[in-house]
Amino acid sequence: MNYKMILYLTAQIVRAVGVLLLLPLLTAVIYGEAKGCLAFGIVAAGMILLGTLLTLKKPGNKAVYTREGMAVVACSWIAVSMLGALPYVITGDIPNYADAVFETASGLTTTGSTILTDIESLSRSALFWRAFTHFIGGMGILIFMLAVLPQTDTRTMHLVRAESAGPTAGKLVAKMSQSVRILYGIYLTLTVSEMLLLLCGGMPFYDAITTAFATAGTGGFSVRAGSIADYHSAYTDLIVTIFMGLFSVNFTMYYLILSKKFMQVFRNEELRTFVGICVTAIVLVTANITSFYGSILTALRYAGFQVLSIISTAGFSTADYTEWPYFSQAILLTLMFVGGCAGSTGGGLKVMRIIVLCKSALREVRRTLSPRSVITVKSDGKALDQEMVHGVCYYFVVFMLLLTASSVLLSLDGHDIPSTVSAVITCMNNVGPGLGEVGPSGNFAGFSAWAKILLTVDMLFGRLEIYPLLVLFTIRKK
Amino acid sequence: MNYKMILYLTAQIVRAVGVLLLLPLLTAVIYGEAKGCLAFGIVAAGMILLGTLLTLKKPGNKAVYTREGMAVVACSWIAVSMLGALPYVITGDIPNYADAVFETASGLTTTGSTILTDIESLSRSALFWRAFTHFIGGMGILIFMLAVLPQTDTRTMHLVRAESAGPTAGKLVAKMSQSVRILYGIYLTLTVSEMLLLLCGGMPFYDAITTAFATAGTGGFSVRAGSIADYHSAYTDLIVTIFMGLFSVNFTMYYLILSKKFMQVFRNEELRTFVGICVTAIVLVTANITSFYGSILTALRYAGFQVLSIISTAGFSTADYTEWPYFSQAILLTLMFVGGCAGSTGGGLKVMRIIVLCKSALREVRRTLSPRSVITVKSDGKALDQEMVHGVCYYFVVFMLLLTASSVLLSLDGHDIPSTVSAVITCMNNVGPGLGEVGPSGNFAGFSAWAKILLTVDMLFGRLEIYPLLVLFTIRKK
Repeated sequence: MNYKMILYLTAQIVRAVGVLLLLPLLTAVIYGEAKGCLAFGIVAAGMILLGTLLTLKKPGNKAVYTREGMAVVACSWIAVSMLGALPYVITGDIPNYADAVFETASGLTTTGSTILTDIESLSRSALFWRAFTHFIGGMGILIFMLAVLPQTDTRTMHLVRAESAGPTAGKLVAKMSQSVRILYGIYLTLTVSEMLLLLCGGMPFYDAITTAFATAGTGGFSVRAGSIADYHSAYTDLIVTIFMGLFSVNFTMYYLILSKKFMQVFRNEELRTFVGICVTAIVLVTANITSFYGSILTALRYAGFQVLSIISTAGFSTADYTEWPYFSQAILLTLMFVGGCAGSTGGGLKVMRIIVLCKSALREVRRTLSPRSVITVKSDGKALDQEMVHGVCYYFVVFMLLLTASSVLLSLDGHDIPSTVSAVITCMNNVGPGLGEVGPSGNFAGFSAWAKILLTVDMLFGRLEIYPLLVLFTIRKK
Repeated sequence: MNYKMILYLTAQIVRAVGVLLLLPLLTAVIYGEAKGCLAFGIVAAGMILLGTLLTLKKPGNKAVYTREGMAVVACSWIAVSMLGALPYVITGDIPNYADAVFETASGLTTTGSTILTDIESLSRSALFWRAFTHFIGGMGILIFMLAVLPQTDTRTMHLVRAESAGPTAGKLVAKMSQSVRILYGIYLTLTVSEMLLLLCGGMPFYDAITTAFATAGTGGFSVRAGSIADYHSAYTDLIVTIFMGLFSVNFTMYYLILSKKFMQVFRNEELRTFVGICVTAIVLVTANITSFYGSILTALRYAGFQVLSIISTAGFSTADYTEWPYFSQAILLTLMFVGGCAGSTGGGLKVMRIIVLCKSALREVRRTLSPRSVITVKSDGKALDQEMVHGVCYYFVVFMLLLTASSVLLSLDGHDIPSTVSAVITCMNNVGPGLGEVGPSGNFAGFSAWAKILLTVDMLFGRLEIYPLLVLFTIRKK
């Protein structure tokens, strides 16, 4: 392991995020929040200074491979979660440090679970930072740094692979660094578009930019206590619904559209499956809750919003789905595991993995029933690599074992089984709300400090797809 | 597919079970239950007649391979569940046929979930049959037939493999048919031993024999409304606890003990893991519920019973664990998935599969972190076959997908999420009780007819390990 390079790159990221802190600082200045100016000023300056000091001397050996890539991802996400929590503590918005780390990690991992009981009592700059962490984490902290700071192409590749969501990470163009910049451009364009459309609906500028950030990262933090429901606008609901969907699609699709390769987009199996799942779920939930709302159109509005909110793992809410019939709740709970497409900002297991799991399950059934037949798992008409298929299945096994272990541990904190298990499910899939105590109208304030740390680790496991964090435990070896 | 041979063997099994019905008939005669005499007499005669008629002409082609083996298993379990339900309906003990099929399948699959609200109102012969189905299903309906009726050795092998629990099915001695007889002998000996020990504790003969049957199959049906708690005897609790453990161990171990190969038993990884899990769980649950009971010894008594009851998937109860702290509930819920050892009468995923899942998860983590290393999964010091390891992982994936689909479907019946999900978990793992409505003091009476059929299918999926049932859906293909 190239420790010096890991430290060097982590320091670069700390510095880059320090620069990003200037935006909430600006917010504090605009709204005249003295405490906010102080807090964000100090932490931004500190992070920039620390990052600069640690990057003064470039390491001689600049090699970065898979393990280094993972270690950088793990170290930088942990560092940014811990440092990014400081402003909340300094402003006094979230006085408890464990709470502040939970909230920051929840933001960065785009989970959107909160320990806050009275969101609107927070300062404007703190709420801005809270939403902004979604935007930073959505596309990836490293991807942001790579889009800004030039790196060699192999190094970029290993870093991107370690942070990307989904079973594979592809390039758009020959050069990885170029691909990263294109992806970030698409990300920014979509975010600004949503903000403008929200403004058109009469949403205040501050609300529009924070909501756009939270949608972009499929995070779900809102600046309002009642989430999107507080705007009481069907137009706003519709715009947010559409953009939650758009941000759950593999960003490669937008590049293909820009390159006028429409047929490739149309034929993409993951996209078709994602749309298919969404439509099916919306139809079923709408049918299930029509009698609850008395009108099919109202039911469609709430069902559409909530299905997209859960499958995209944004976790915004316009209705408390724990009051809906159990069938709708079961569907939403299942969608938490599905998540967005690979290469999107959505969480969960990713649609691609679900496709591979279902297809390989079917193949296993066929293989067991007719032992002599040779059947391959195909996607987009091509046979999938056996290694990748096995990798997806083992990822699922590792994920479920971690989920079980976390749930058993968390149950020690004394919350009922649905609240405990759904808290772990929602955190590991980076969704946000769960059932019971942690339902859409609840929050995570009732958990004790150690439980919050456990859930913070679960959120990081989910967002970073487990392995990068585990690399830290094997650092001593060789 | 050799359809004629499938029909021929299924008919043989129907006839064999018809003969077994003479035992509840005898019970009805002893207790002077006229309705019982009529019901069991008619059904026994009918099954023997039907079986004899259909086996009059032996098929010319007697070949039985994997697919035929699975089809025989599926057909005979479905046939016996549907025919074995008739006596309940005829006696009027369970007037509704869907309920009667649920209860019979729950017995045969050794699940032990019940739709009865007042167990003690049933006739003695019906309650005897109920417990006896556990004994028949525990070791396997086919295994019973194979122990009685001679078959060629290859045919026996395919039939045993299709019905056996666990990832692999081994032979004790060179001849498979001989192995089957030895296993059945061990099974009978253990059951009689438990019965005698229960009698020594002062339990009435009728209760002792039915309790021994229900323990042997790790089923959990009791003839008392309050299950084993109704005997108010620490001795009885202890005997049942020990035997639930004994019946969860791979029966091969007993053969090794009889052959004086003690070291092989001592070194067996699955057995050591099973004991390790039980001890750990008992210690944790005892510590967790000591303040609930006020005494560590009382806590140990209830914790030991309940841990063994759940991991063995018997599902007896001496206490309502849904009143225990959530940590204990979470542990028990996790143990439902573990189940007994392969080659035992216990349900669940089986300890061997859990070992393989955990080890291959660890291997996958290592492989991802150091891509160039070659790591094999070992058990008992030997490297496991790759195909088997993949098979276990895919089995887990198929299992979880079925579990999810069943839960979503079942949620349409309008029971809260913990009751719905735990009903599916407990049925698929053949445990018996779940949480909420279907907790140890609840039952499955509240589900509608279609939901009971769904859960019946889940019980069969669990007991037959999925694939045999699926073979029925592919029968049309060549």
